[in-house]
Amino acid sequence: MVFDGLYAERAKLMKTSEIREFFKLTEQPDMMSFAGGFPSADFFPMGKVTDVLQGLIEQEGKFALQYGPTEGNLELRTYLAEKMTQEGIPASPDNILITNGSQQGMDLLSRVFLNPGDVVVVEEPGYVGGLGAIRNYEGDRQSIPMDENGLRTDLLAAALRKLSGDNRLPKFAYLVPNFQNPTGICLSLERRREMLKLAREYNFALIEDNPYGEIRFEGKALPSIKSMDTEGRVIYLGSFSKTFIPGIRVGWLVADEPLVQKLACAKQSTDLCSNSLGQRMACRFAASGYIDEHVASLISHYKEKRDLMISCMEKHFPAGVSWTYPQGGFFIWVTLPEEMNARSLLLKAIERRVAFVDGAGFYVNGNGINTARFAFSEASPEKIWRGIAILGELLHEEVTGLKKAISA
Amino acid sequence: MVFDGLYAERAKLMKTSEIREFFKLTEQPDMMSFAGGFPSADFFPMGKVTDVLQGLIEQEGKFALQYGPTEGNLELRTYLAEKMTQEGIPASPDNILITNGSQQGMDLLSRVFLNPGDVVVVEEPGYVGGLGAIRNYEGDRQSIPMDENGLRTDLLAAALRKLSGDNRLPKFAYLVPNFQNPTGICLSLERRREMLKLAREYNFALIEDNPYGEIRFEGKALPSIKSMDTEGRVIYLGSFSKTFIPGIRVGWLVADEPLVQKLACAKQSTDLCSNSLGQRMACRFAASGYIDEHVASLISHYKEKRDLMISCMEKHFPAGVSWTYPQGGFFIWVTLPEEMNARSLLLKAIERRVAFVDGAGFYVNGNGINTARFAFSEASPEKIWRGIAILGELLHEEVTGLKKAISA
Repeated sequence: MVFDGLYAERAKLMKTSEIREFFKLTEQPDMMSFAGGFPSADFFPMGKVTDVLQGLIEQEGKFALQYGPTEGNLELRTYLAEKMTQEGIPASPDNILITNGSQQGMDLLSRVFLNPGDVVVVEEPGYVGGLGAIRNYEGDRQSIPMDENGLRTDLLAAALRKLSGDNRLPKFAYLVPNFQNPTGICLSLERRREMLKLAREYNFALIEDNPYGEIRFEGKALPSIKSMDTEGRVIYLGSFSKTFIPGIRVGWLVADEPLVQKLACAKQSTDLCSNSLGQRMACRFAASGYIDEHVASLISHYKEKRDLMISCMEKHFPAGVSWTYPQGGFFIWVTLPEEMNARSLLLKAIERRVAFVDGAGFYVNGNGINTARFAFSEASPEKIWRGIAILGELLHEEVTGLKKAISA
Repeated sequence: MVFDGLYAERAKLMKTSEIREFFKLTEQPDMMSFAGGFPSADFFPMGKVTDVLQGLIEQEGKFALQYGPTEGNLELRTYLAEKMTQEGIPASPDNILITNGSQQGMDLLSRVFLNPGDVVVVEEPGYVGGLGAIRNYEGDRQSIPMDENGLRTDLLAAALRKLSGDNRLPKFAYLVPNFQNPTGICLSLERRREMLKLAREYNFALIEDNPYGEIRFEGKALPSIKSMDTEGRVIYLGSFSKTFIPGIRVGWLVADEPLVQKLACAKQSTDLCSNSLGQRMACRFAASGYIDEHVASLISHYKEKRDLMISCMEKHFPAGVSWTYPQGGFFIWVTLPEEMNARSLLLKAIERRVAFVDGAGFYVNGNGINTARFAFSEASPEKIWRGIAILGELLHEEVTGLKKAISA
């Protein structure tokens, strides 16, 4: 290859992930797939999208199809500043940067904060997109195990003491505190406070990525970490991908103005601006009040799917297999018996036209080989019902096989 | 500031450019501005956009509003592979990566090729977006002066001999060979061949950015450098921003498959995918054949503006001021008398409600203080006519002032 000697150091870490290759397989139409964490296209508000688009081109087409400001459309930033303020995060438009989904927020933040080898605290297991952005800038991802209340702040405190001794304190911690991808777990209020305390004590930034927070089926919403932040230490990432549509790639970031300006400067040379059409669509859809009604309907639709998948798991999965019970979001996290390998199980499941994601890819340290992520968001009820039953059969066979192997 | 001690080395280079701040001033509606290099929204094909959008949401809304593949929509990549092949660049869909405008192509390429301090060859003067992307990754921009035939390959050859002696050969050269931003100049055929020869001899990559090539008013199109490349050394960047609309942020990159895969991997953690709606809009607009007719009409509209601005300059600008005569694209490059400072002139022009961009920002070495970029693409004929006349008056005053100062 002509370029092999020319690549940058960081490029050597960029490899096509197995998960991605494998997604192509799971996207065959007859597959009962719980692999992709996509929203259901059945719930896209098509009628409203058509109305919004028509009004948009007629009334402001010259702007909606033109380049826009790097920071984002001012009307959308104004709407988002008001929304954030209502949610306990006082913000003006100058605190908002529009990004191509919250993934671009993570990319720009990693670019602005990370020198090669800089430590970043991540959840174990953690969101692959966040982990990948950090890896792209050669960050050293230190993962802290989670339990049913989210990242174990006691373990983090111990890790920080050690890192402090080595003079290797983290630049930031990356958290998905609500209905986390991949586990569906929420970070408890006590631990939110503890995270902020540790961030202050050891002087690192906190990135709070919240794509799923509004899709809550039951229970009381916990305050965001950003809402408890008095010194601009927390950077909040939001997205329209789950509450509206992902295909327009519109997310946002909330931070103090000097950081927003630095990130806008980085974004300027990255892609000039986010797409104007998508920003104005999101703004019209949200600011006109459609979005509240829409999110309410999403909650009821996704709750049905969560309930169905959980009840199917309860009915079909054998003893020794456990799973989380998420109060919102898209994901259930399944733990298989310790001796079982989720990747092997997946390969057998695919032969029976069922797919999920084995968990190892969400770990940075080789752990999690007996774990798996199940998304209930996209599959139809029929596919959930049939797929989990087929997987239950397979799991029963595997457990029986394991027992035989152990007793042999 | 809470984060000042936490930023990465590269972030220290990210500063809000003066040009950007200044653009805000030039965007006031009564300004006769030749500053922004935007396409004219008057030429956006509104009717077709409405038709395309309506069909798109009706017939493939579930896909057009959903996440898509990181590499880009397959139908669009297939269309672009055919288009490139017709233009003498044999390509399959696997050679095409869809990007958020060609700016994202430059960002991803800089990320994949550049370690801090790596040398990159750029044009002097050069496109600020390209220069900024290289700076974002701490590349060392070595600018090579241009003349009326583009980058001076004789000077480049001399620079390469020296860099080779210092063991500091460039990773790549970044070129806008057609109707360059900011000068409007085309790289001659002989120099295109010479660039390729030097790239082979000294083993660096060539990035050929071609947003304006199709907007040619007269003369014969020159073959792209990529079309002369037999070993995958040239990376071609294309864009719909000038031939269709910029507000959807859809561009593309053509390269050998291993590089496309590496870039797709980098893009995956950058923004997951480009916006599906914009990609499918561009695909429907282009693949249905609308685009050829549209580009033909753009050529005739922009040619009128070029002709008008040139004739106004001829009529109103004093002796000692010279300018390029671009055969296409959006820009005219003006050179003032050596003693004149284009920034000072600009500040005076703004007081008379006329704006352009002074040239220093297109140089990486402090040169060009008596140069300026004039875009004829966006301003109305009335504003071109009035604005150039006002500027002519101002220039006459300045030249008279200069003469007095010299003779005093």
